[in-house]
Amino acid sequence: MKRAQKSHVTAAALYTVGGRRNNAVAAMAFVAAVMGAMPAMADSTASNAIAANPNKSVATKRQVRVERRTPAYWRVTFDNPPFNIFGPKSIPQLEEVITAIEKDPDLKIVVFDSAVPGFFLTHYDFVPPLADSTGLPSGPTGLHPLPDMLVRLSRAPVVSISLIRGRATGVGSELALASDIRFASREKAILSQWEVGAALVPGGGPMARLPRLMGRGRALEILLGAEDIDGDLAEKYGYVNRSLPDDQLDGFVDAFATRIAAFDRKAIADTKRLVDLASLPSDPEIAAGWDAFITSVQRPQAQAKIKQLMELGLQTNGEIESRLGHYTATLGQD
Amino acid sequence: MKRAQKSHVTAAALYTVGGRRNNAVAAMAFVAAVMGAMPAMADSTASNAIAANPNKSVATKRQVRVERRTPAYWRVTFDNPPFNIFGPKSIPQLEEVITAIEKDPDLKIVVFDSAVPGFFLTHYDFVPPLADSTGLPSGPTGLHPLPDMLVRLSRAPVVSISLIRGRATGVGSELALASDIRFASREKAILSQWEVGAALVPGGGPMARLPRLMGRGRALEILLGAEDIDGDLAEKYGYVNRSLPDDQLDGFVDAFATRIAAFDRKAIADTKRLVDLASLPSDPEIAAGWDAFITSVQRPQAQAKIKQLMELGLQTNGEIESRLGHYTATLGQD
Amino acid sequence: MKRAQKSHVTAAALYTVGGRRNNAVAAMAFVAAVMGAMPAMADSTASNAIAANPNKSVATKRQVRVERRTPAYWRVTFDNPPFNIFGPKSIPQLEEVITAIEKDPDLKIVVFDSAVPGFFLTHYDFVPPLADSTGLPSGPTGLHPLPDMLVRLSRAPVVSISLIRGRATGVGSELALASDIRFASREKAILSQWEVGAALVPGGGPMARLPRLMGRGRALEILLGAEDIDGDLAEKYGYVNRSLPDDQLDGFVDAFATRIAAFDRKAIADTKRLVDLASLPSDPEIAAGWDAFITSVQRPQAQAKIKQLMELGLQTNGEIESRLGHYTATLGQD
Repeated sequence: MKRAQKSHVTAAALYTVGGRRNNAVAAMAFVAAVMGAMPAMADSTASNAIAANPNKSVATKRQVRVERRTPAYWRVTFDNPPFNIFGPKSIPQLEEVITAIEKDPDLKIVVFDSAVPGFFLTHYDFVPPLADSTGLPSGPTGLHPLPDMLVRLSRAPVVSISLIRGRATGVGSELALASDIRFASREKAILSQWEVGAALVPGGGPMARLPRLMGRGRALEILLGAEDIDGDLAEKYGYVNRSLPDDQLDGFVDAFATRIAAFDRKAIADTKRLVDLASLPSDPEIAAGWDAFITSVQRPQAQAKIKQLMELGLQTNGEIESRLGHYTATLGQD
Repeated sequence: MKRAQKSHVTAAALYTVGGRRNNAVAAMAFVAAVMGAMPAMADSTASNAIAANPNKSVATKRQVRVERRTPAYWRVTFDNPPFNIFGPKSIPQLEEVITAIEKDPDLKIVVFDSAVPGFFLTHYDFVPPLADSTGLPSGPTGLHPLPDMLVRLSRAPVVSISLIRGRATGVGSELALASDIRFASREKAILSQWEVGAALVPGGGPMARLPRLMGRGRALEILLGAEDIDGDLAEKYGYVNRSLPDDQLDGFVDAFATRIAAFDRKAIADTKRLVDLASLPSDPEIAAGWDAFITSVQRPQAQAKIKQLMELGLQTNGEIESRLGHYTATLGQD
Repeated sequence: MKRAQKSHVTAAALYTVGGRRNNAVAAMAFVAAVMGAMPAMADSTASNAIAANPNKSVATKRQVRVERRTPAYWRVTFDNPPFNIFGPKSIPQLEEVITAIEKDPDLKIVVFDSAVPGFFLTHYDFVPPLADSTGLPSGPTGLHPLPDMLVRLSRAPVVSISLIRGRATGVGSELALASDIRFASREKAILSQWEVGAALVPGGGPMARLPRLMGRGRALEILLGAEDIDGDLAEKYGYVNRSLPDDQLDGFVDAFATRIAAFDRKAIADTKRLVDLASLPSDPEIAAGWDAFITSVQRPQAQAKIKQLMELGLQTNGEIESRLGHYTATLGQD
């Protein structure tokens, strides 16, 4: 408790004193905060304002927008420039969307895409104190709200598609994997689970989902190699359903979604539910992955790697964010 | 009970009175019959003769032919022109073949193919009253005879191959999926589960089999998109083992079958049995799919879609049958 | 017991009397020995020296070499010319390596390759009496030491890669499948489970592993067709992660291994352990495969096929070893 509190103070001091934010130092604060994350949960509200992402001018800015093209067909667009980083502030916004998807009586199909060039949705935000994440109340499944949202999306009675243009890394890859169907830009999609490259265990379910999608061998290559996967290889491995030429992707996905939007809602839901039986991991299996992530992020090896990445420009420098698979391989070892 | 009886009479009247058969009206009779399907089971025998498929001049015409090329190598050929539609009359014929496959002590390999140009085997027959189908006694597994035959084929101690040239839709796709191995014509094969496009849930097991074959994402695309899948995409997705140039397909399959026919019967059976452990769905999972189909076909949304399709020319017009994925997308919603 | 003892004597006599070894007769001895394999276990130690593979000048010659490139990155090289046949003498050598892999605190990645041109690792040795194999004590998992080693490799807390150049047949394919990741030479790799072609059931787990990797249909084609699979088809089916141009394979694998060697050992282990949950068969399922192999090898049909293959030149003639899929199809039936 004391340590967590202290680290919050440190982080606050940084933001108070410094004009330009020092992400590397903030990351150290994050990592220090981790050590007291669980007992510090009660304090997390107080530190929220301090740790707010400076990329957002207003605390309530919409990172996740919903466009109802028709009552049956929605688009959900990630819009958190410059990198579509996903953090504790994103969670309630996406949770609201997932709940709407679950409850809307007319919806049949939802397409997730991005308004940020070069990024579909990327890794978790390392600037806010971990307690901002761990302190969030559990979702309806009893899981932490991040994996909770993902498993609820998979089980929703409507079809979900990820239209992947740009980088889908970490949470971005995990959201794509929790979607029912993935279509990617052949030239502009990059998928990855980069976490092992930063001494982390991925937390949003890819250890459960990737082997069921493509078999153990290719899943282990993706997870343990932690490399950037382009559109061609993603299609070959079954990481995505198909990769299409970039200039055809939008038209293809829109036509596919429009097609399904004309079908019967209950036939869709009942068919999907039976596929779920044969293909979805159990919640405890997802929970085990989340717990392993939380454990991993508190280890000094992960702290050292994240600190190095922040110093290189993680979360500030597009070169680092765009070539994460390359930069994780340049890090020194503890 | 009363409604079912009444619909049988209606259907009978249609065939007695009308010179040219009105499929759209017959389909309505089918759909009406559904409402009383379960209680009407006892009456189904009486109505069999009435509802006989007019495409067949003789009630006992063989739709399923067996050629014993050698004691170890059989060909089973679907021959129910013009579209190889599969209905309640087809069931006992195929059941007889499946039983022979299970019991023959010398058989090692069986290849399923078609004598009907453009069609491997297609969707279920919507003309006979549903009671003709639901009234059939359960098979040895306790399942309805259609899924019963399919699970028995998968577990038979011999190798089964579907040689797919032309359309394999609905039951045709389900039989192919229940076979051990699928080889397709690159140019002339079309596979699909079209059912969701007609507000139906597929009944012959594809929700259980497709995700185990190709992963959840591609399985959901096939089932919920309900689109026609050509030979190239079928191979890419693993819907078939391989697609071969049409002029090489017959030679390839015959050579493969002849090769296996020279191998040891017990080594084949014991090896397959262990693959079954790792890859076959349970019977209750298959039963859930069949029940969902029977429920779906009784819903007004499905009745409306099937009626529209019959009016367009389903079961009479080759254009509709050949481009089913296109025409399901042209239907109005209830 | 008596029969087994007699067959040991026979095998011994062959090696004592004959100058040039007669493999066909030795194979008959092997097959005869099988009949008393279980009760003969106590005698197996005595016959070990006698049945030593004459290809090795010294009984203790290293068939399996370990090179520690760095503390984190090892290469394990199969070097048992001319064909990298794997037999009861190979088992303790590989077992020693597997134990070292499990226990070394610094190791992160191990690459299996071959020093023998044309052969990665091939089928089980049919010359020694079966009792030499069945008499080996169970491994830590309670399984026979061959499947025991394979399941332990899959569960080891480090990454394993098979670099496949040349033939990976039988045990060679099974070791590759038990590895986490497989990279193959596009031009020079051949993978196969040839066993059914010799009236055998494969024993090292491919009935459990192949369907989980590529689905039931392609797994059954590989297992029941028992054909040689080249690099292109192996990649298409997911039998290997990727096939690379032969002149790029070594560089690619070394770069991939070096990359992982710089990552965090615990993040690797924890991530892999969760993939295991979703993708590994249980030990009883592996045991069932081994038992089926032991049963199959004792059947006269297998004895006859192995005898024919030995007469053709199995284990002596490179033409037979290199084109095993072809030659199994030339055998007469019992």
